Amino acid sequence: MLTTAEACGRYARDESETVATLPDGVVIAKDADEIAAVLRVCAEHEVPVTPRGGGSGRTGGSVPVAGGIVLSMEGMRGIKELSREDLLIVVEPGVITGDLHALVEKEGLFYPPDPNSLGVCAIGGNVAENAGGPRAFKYGVTRDYVLGCEAVLMGGERIRAGKRTVKGVTGYDVTATLVGSEGTLGVFTEITLRLLPKPPEVRTLLALFSAVKGCGDATSQIVARGLTPRCLELMDEMALGALRANGAAVDPRAAALLLIEIDGDHDLDRDMERIGEACMDAGAIDVVVAQDAAQRDRLWAARRELSPAVRKLARKKLSEDVVVPRSKVTALLEACARIREREGLKMLAYGHAGDGNLHVNFFWDHEDELPRVDRAIEACFREVLALGGTLSGEHGIGVLKAPYLPLEQSPALIALQKRIKSAFDPQGLLNPGKIFPVAGKPHAAC
Amino acid sequence: MLTTAEACGRYARDESETVATLPDGVVIAKDADEIAAVLRVCAEHEVPVTPRGGGSGRTGGSVPVAGGIVLSMEGMRGIKELSREDLLIVVEPGVITGDLHALVEKEGLFYPPDPNSLGVCAIGGNVAENAGGPRAFKYGVTRDYVLGCEAVLMGGERIRAGKRTVKGVTGYDVTATLVGSEGTLGVFTEITLRLLPKPPEVRTLLALFSAVKGCGDATSQIVARGLTPRCLELMDEMALGALRANGAAVDPRAAALLLIEIDGDHDLDRDMERIGEACMDAGAIDVVVAQDAAQRDRLWAARRELSPAVRKLARKKLSEDVVVPRSKVTALLEACARIREREGLKMLAYGHAGDGNLHVNFFWDHEDELPRVDRAIEACFREVLALGGTLSGEHGIGVLKAPYLPLEQSPALIALQKRIKSAFDPQGLLNPGKIFPVAGKPHAAC
Repeated sequence: MLTTAEACGRYARDESETVATLPDGVVIAKDADEIAAVLRVCAEHEVPVTPRGGGSGRTGGSVPVAGGIVLSMEGMRGIKELSREDLLIVVEPGVITGDLHALVEKEGLFYPPDPNSLGVCAIGGNVAENAGGPRAFKYGVTRDYVLGCEAVLMGGERIRAGKRTVKGVTGYDVTATLVGSEGTLGVFTEITLRLLPKPPEVRTLLALFSAVKGCGDATSQIVARGLTPRCLELMDEMALGALRANGAAVDPRAAALLLIEIDGDHDLDRDMERIGEACMDAGAIDVVVAQDAAQRDRLWAARRELSPAVRKLARKKLSEDVVVPRSKVTALLEACARIREREGLKMLAYGHAGDGNLHVNFFWDHEDELPRVDRAIEACFREVLALGGTLSGEHGIGVLKAPYLPLEQSPALIALQKRIKSAFDPQGLLNPGKIFPVAGKPHAAC
Repeated sequence: MLTTAEACGRYARDESETVATLPDGVVIAKDADEIAAVLRVCAEHEVPVTPRGGGSGRTGGSVPVAGGIVLSMEGMRGIKELSREDLLIVVEPGVITGDLHALVEKEGLFYPPDPNSLGVCAIGGNVAENAGGPRAFKYGVTRDYVLGCEAVLMGGERIRAGKRTVKGVTGYDVTATLVGSEGTLGVFTEITLRLLPKPPEVRTLLALFSAVKGCGDATSQIVARGLTPRCLELMDEMALGALRANGAAVDPRAAALLLIEIDGDHDLDRDMERIGEACMDAGAIDVVVAQDAAQRDRLWAARRELSPAVRKLARKKLSEDVVVPRSKVTALLEACARIREREGLKMLAYGHAGDGNLHVNFFWDHEDELPRVDRAIEACFREVLALGGTLSGEHGIGVLKAPYLPLEQSPALIALQKRIKSAFDPQGLLNPGKIFPVAGKPHAAC
């Protein structure tokens, strides 16, 4: 166990602004037995445990807020099995998602979930948070690929849930209950993931619009034609501004764009034509089709540069990954523009238009702007819920969104979830302070 | 409330051999308020409640085994919303699945799960049992299409769980916990289902083999080529024998067959050729491609006639819907042949080869054969588990499979599920006697 101030500090952070209570120690688990031992001893002594994957979370899921032990999975990166015929892989929880992609693609297979942090995030964290990514419009999210798991409960009891097959209805779906539970119900020691054949053909297209409404209209036109691109990525005017300020050569006429990618195992020319037509019918200024892999990479470069470019806009930012039904994307963006004007804040939006999952970013430089940031975030959440949406598409609730849970969910539903939590962890020691609101917590300053 | 002996008898049956305890009354609910009232009053007076969809279950899920009230959904068949743009439909639980198919297909949309009973089963029952069907190989099962729901808990408390979007990670996945819980955790009053664009092209092909091993080999060849048909239906020699005895013109050379269907929105000729090649490489005697819709219907006729044809083989039968990883389908069929010879029983198998989900049927005419039937079923289950499979793919555990749950699941996992049950229904009054084993129950004679 690591107990130095340096180690405890290093394992008290993620990619959010969550303020930790420094842990008393860090255990880098090497196998399931060690995880079981930690959870048994900590339960006996009533010590909180915070499980940790790659530490790339955006809502504080892996940040200890009650001290105790951080239980890191970085020592468990084994691949236990890869079956081409049964289209599945069995992995340890610390495997880096990008490494998993590379490994299965070498075998002609495909694991679709692709969170932006895939170079550093761990599959155990992806499963705990039910991670998404751009390809979710066609392929769904992490929950759609988890067939089964082995997990350890607080107290050290090991359970094996789920199956190795797509079908299976033996008992309750304990696996599905664990997926997305943000490390509050159990610690994964082994995960069985469903794979697909790798689609041999991929084509990419960029559509430029003079207003963000065009992105929503084009998405509607594409869906109405029965087309299902794997990615439909949107950037609004402020996001393009951040890219231009960063030196990117974005067409000066564009006030919004859609980056669209399709895949399949057949000739995609006709699909590309139909998507281009849908964009033109929605008023696109221009449609640029990548002719080869190098051009594809150039089209994606803008999307990849976005996160670092956006960070330069202010000293602090919060990215809220709200979701609305895809027919409401334009309505949400218009509401965000009203909130921005009313509060006089820097805000921008980009994200997954096909899913209606937008990353709305709020910026501030000085502490005295925080009340306006908090007001703007709450107003955004209220708009999302009024449009039939949900507070988080892929980042989770963690610490930062916990105060807002009652905006979306009824007291009866929250009480039921607390009873489910008690069924797994009656002492409340596993990843405490997450998901459920704690009285008196502020937000952006958490 | 209906309390006549006739009504109580009529609502005490499903499509299995489960023996009921006659209910004290039957309530045909007309809305969510009435369901909440029944669950409130019954909780107050400690009266068991058995929810009921179409009554077409195969394991006794909707059969009352502790008396009390049967709560039928047949009066709740409303469609609350259909959104082409958001690709979703909001329905009441009593809607017949086949009616749902017809309704959405008229709008150019598609709801993939297609249990064999779709002409009579209700969507609420499909969600409670997590129903599958032939199209699951490509499209997954009911759980993959349930976005959200409103449900009433025992005691009358109403909860709204889930979302209207594919992405969404706000709190635990209570919807996924309810799906497949066999009516033991809550009663659905409204279900939001994800839809897909209807694939415009469908093609069907029949491949004949001289031994059932060819079906497994062809499935492997198809998967190895990266192809994903929507259906891959297998029939073994005894199943073909039942069809021939029923007057069907099945090629006399065939000892097994695969019925394969593909779909998509592009020209499928090349895919059909590749599937035909895969079957020939696996040793097919012949491959018959349907040239039009009428020929497609003729190819499917054999599959549709199978269930009634098979019923004629003996006075009684049990169909077990076991699942093995698809690479183990041949191994399971060989094991079944050994069990059949050892016990001297009539047995046959057909089902969904792509999913590894086989319906293994056991037949008997006289009570004195029952010990052999029970031995054969348990031997089959043990083979399934040794091959990495699961006891039920789509029929559920219900009453009939409950005694076998401990073969697959550890005491720790069963105890955890009982704690989850208590979190929803602390009195244990909602659909009692299902899923969890009760001491001393026999099987085939349940």
